[in-house]
Parts: sequence; C-alpha cells; structure tokens
Amino acid sequence: MTAIDELLGHNADYAAAFGKGELPSAPSKRLAVVTCMDARIVPLRALGLEEGDAHVIRNAGGVVTDDVIRSLTVSQRKLRTIEVMVVMHTRCGMHGLADAEFRDEVQADAGQRPPWSSGGFPDLEQAVREGAARLRTSPFLPHTDQVRGFVYEVETGRLREVV
Amino acid sequence: MTAIDELLGHNADYAAAFGKGELPSAPSKRLAVVTCMDARIVPLRALGLEEGDAHVIRNAGGVVTDDVIRSLTVSQRKLRTIEVMVVMHTRCGMHGLADAEFRDEVQADAGQRPPWSSGGFPDLEQAVREGAARLRTSPFLPHTDQVRGFVYEVETGRLREVV
Repeated sequence: MTAIDELLGHNADYAAAFGKGELPSAPSKRLAVVTCMDARIVPLRALGLEEGDAHVIRNAGGVVTDDVIRSLTVSQRKLRTIEVMVVMHTRCGMHGLADAEFRDEVQADAGQRPPWSSGGFPDLEQAVREGAARLRTSPFLPHTDQVRGFVYEVETGRLREVV
Repeated sequence: MTAIDELLGHNADYAAAFGKGELPSAPSKRLAVVTCMDARIVPLRALGLEEGDAHVIRNAGGVVTDDVIRSLTVSQRKLRTIEVMVVMHTRCGMHGLADAEFRDEVQADAGQRPPWSSGGFPDLEQAVREGAARLRTSPFLPHTDQVRGFVYEVETGRLREVV
C-alpha cells in the first residue's frame, strides 16, 4: 500500500463523519499564514487553525517568492484577508543551502539548470525580516500594515516573534 | 486583539504541552502533498496527516507553478520523498478567474501590472490533469511515477481521484 492509499483511507473516514456542510470560502479570521512545507509544522495543532479560519500558503522554506505574492494578492483582493503571518522555522533544510551548489547539483543530474533560485538562505532571522519586508513593500497587496514575522522552533513547538 | 494574537495564545498552549521532542526533517511517509491555500482544507483532518508525515505545499489554487516545482525538487532531492499528491478542490476562487481581467484589476489599483499569471483556470478536472502532467514531465524531479491528482469536495469532505 502506498502512502497515498493510506491517506485515502483516512479521507474516507473524514468524509463519512463530515457534518459541517459547506463553509464560506473567505477565511473567517481574515488571516493568511505563510510557512514552510516542513512535515513537522501542523497549523491546526501549532496555531489552532480550524477549518475556515485562514489561508495557509506553504513552500520550501516559507520564503516570500513571487508565487507567495500571487497567492496573497488573491487572498487579500478576492477573499478579504488583511493580516499576514510569516512563519519560518529552526532546522529548516533551506537554512544554509547554497543556491549555486544546489543548482549545480540539479543540473549535473537533470542535464539542465533550474530557471528558479533554490530559496536557500544563510541566516534565519534575517530571512524572516526579508520576507516580511518584501510583503510590506509589495505594490500588489492592499493590506501591509499587519504583516508579522516569526520563527517556529521545531524543538519546542514555540513561536518566537522576529519582526 | 488581532487574529495573530489569538493564534499566539493557541501556540503557547501547544508549546506548553509539546512532548514530542525533535522529529526528523525527512517526512516519514516519503510523500509531498500539493494543495490550495483554501481555509476549508485542513490536511491533518482531511488526510490524517500527523506531525512528521509529509511535506505540504500550498498556494492559491494548488496549481503547479515554478515555485511548486522548486519545493518538490528540494523535497525529493534533499528530503527523500517519492510520492506526490496534487489536490485541487471544488468552489475554488481560482476556478473561472480570468487571468487578463484579474491583472487588469490589480494594475488599475496598484499602478503596475503583476509580472506573474493569476493561476486562474477554466476547468477543474483539466487543471488537475495539467498539474499532474507538469510534475510527471519535470526534468528536475527524480521521482515522477507516483504522482496522483485529486479533487477535494469542500461540500462533502471527500477526495475524488482524477488522474
């Protein structure tokens, strides 16, 4: 049995007990969370985010890429969110990943160079500050006064505010 | 009190009860899930994904953008995942969003045109097929034989396999 098959079993149980009907598409807390894809981060548990509460945007690192700006532009302009929480974390695989080396490695194996940066960063707190700054200065986001940046400690489960 | 302040309260409770120590960074199920940022999708509940199980990559739509390919390249090459599940959903705000109109609207308000596509799509099942196809043919992903695509029904909680 594959991992996906196992998850389909969980989903069948969930659907069988599904009693909430259709929730609104606009997040009730008017919040979007940007965080890393890391398997150890479970927003329902770590942040108490229930169904319908908030948009959750995740990629390798929780770095503020153009795709994150795109998603937040949709989130704020079409679905009325106003707050943004950027959550990067300790022990992240992107922390210390050297961009040129990673792309060299992919190129050596794939026969072509990735057209995107790896997203690696040398300093965690600085990366949070840069992500928040990128959001605060984005011309595409109508709401940039409630952008806050955090480090999540995978060792303790604790969020620490950076900016 | 802002929504973020409320979440910080939840996190303090979570951290106080945090007993799992530090989990490994590599997902135990060797799986990455690509899905929409939609507030109604809670992977822990809908898929039974516990801490440490899987990477979760989310953006507006669950569309396979370059940033998703970047994240999956890191996921497979650095953290040993091999399966990929693409989960788009019914009642998605990106379903039927016309790209040119959305960019016109942003341009009219922001004074400059976004350099990225909106990610809108006209047909849901077709968008899932295209996302899966983009992953299966990516030169950067070493594992493309276990890519499966689904529609999640926000009305019922049920996953339906498309491809």
